[in-house]
Amino acid sequence: MAGQSKIPQATAKRLPLYYRFLNNLHIQGKTRVSSKELSDAVKVDSATIRRDFSYFGALGKKGYGYNVEYLLGFFRKTLDQDETTTVALIGVGNLGTAFLHYNFTKNNNTKIAMAFDADESKVGEEIGGVKVYHIDQLEEKLTDVQAAILTVPGSVAQPITERIVNSGITGILNFTPARITVPDHVRVHHIDLAVELQSLVYFMKHYPSENS
Amino acid sequence: MAGQSKIPQATAKRLPLYYRFLNNLHIQGKTRVSSKELSDAVKVDSATIRRDFSYFGALGKKGYGYNVEYLLGFFRKTLDQDETTTVALIGVGNLGTAFLHYNFTKNNNTKIAMAFDADESKVGEEIGGVKVYHIDQLEEKLTDVQAAILTVPGSVAQPITERIVNSGITGILNFTPARITVPDHVRVHHIDLAVELQSLVYFMKHYPSENS
Repeated sequence: MAGQSKIPQATAKRLPLYYRFLNNLHIQGKTRVSSKELSDAVKVDSATIRRDFSYFGALGKKGYGYNVEYLLGFFRKTLDQDETTTVALIGVGNLGTAFLHYNFTKNNNTKIAMAFDADESKVGEEIGGVKVYHIDQLEEKLTDVQAAILTVPGSVAQPITERIVNSGITGILNFTPARITVPDHVRVHHIDLAVELQSLVYFMKHYPSENS
Repeated sequence: MAGQSKIPQATAKRLPLYYRFLNNLHIQGKTRVSSKELSDAVKVDSATIRRDFSYFGALGKKGYGYNVEYLLGFFRKTLDQDETTTVALIGVGNLGTAFLHYNFTKNNNTKIAMAFDADESKVGEEIGGVKVYHIDQLEEKLTDVQAAILTVPGSVAQPITERIVNSGITGILNFTPARITVPDHVRVHHIDLAVELQSLVYFMKHYPSENS
């Protein structure tokens, strides 16, 4: 993004969270917020919030806090809220269906425009307002789609990945247990349910009182 | 854990990933692995892997790599693979059902022992080998359960959280859009599908070639 310096990745990961909470405050008519209030709401400690916000050029004033409108404007620009990213969901099993029912449009700049499945009985259905196409139609339909949510069985994750990457997808949210290999220009975020659960258990035992 | 120094949280988060991959290698009869091979498989850069492993007292040898058995032994002890954590799943909607069908027992030290839902038609069912109880039975059933996966609607996340915390749960994997408030001794990991998607889109635009 021209004219905008990069903020640390850890800070960037918290942006959508901040954005959503501030948008709610704005809707409620609030004009300012303290780092303490923010901290309680988003469960990030105030020191981290203050450091994050300093990257945005937002300096809280003692006894006043932060200007909600200023922050919102910044987040909207930074998260490109006015520019919608079109997303396809691949694999309409339980997890895929949960995604389709999830209300992504609220406070958001992404739109799940279509879904795909290999199961003929699901093709033509509309789930959460999203039409399901046959997986054979991937190449034909993915002409103006930038990102994909991958909720297929792990065994087909890699071949499907290759097909969607060849169709121009540059971002993948991988919910399969498989680690997928992609070209350098494609961004992958991997969420493995088993790893998340194991990680929680590890942290329960070793860091019981530091929430993340 | 007595006699074991704390490793950084970022390193700790990668442990389950390393463990799973090394276990697969071990099953295949491999006795050593290079940081390059590990890096390609788990998609973490080799410098990070070498630094992580140095915390485990595992120093790779040039031209040899790491001893798989040593590492596995370390991970097994660290992740307490021999001690099973009992988990309850609360909310058997699409997302909850996906979890119940997920094969968590493979390479894992957690066991989803029971599920709960408010929908009478689901009570008594068995999904993925897990029995579904009525949400009214929470207090009665959660006597020997340490962790919970929360896949209820966001609107009931907080009251349900209070009930399970009162029943002795000390770890929660929160998949609802709601931020929940818990006492200090309870560990919460929050995975918000909308935030994950928005974060992917942000990183696609700003850090296209650095996978995480």
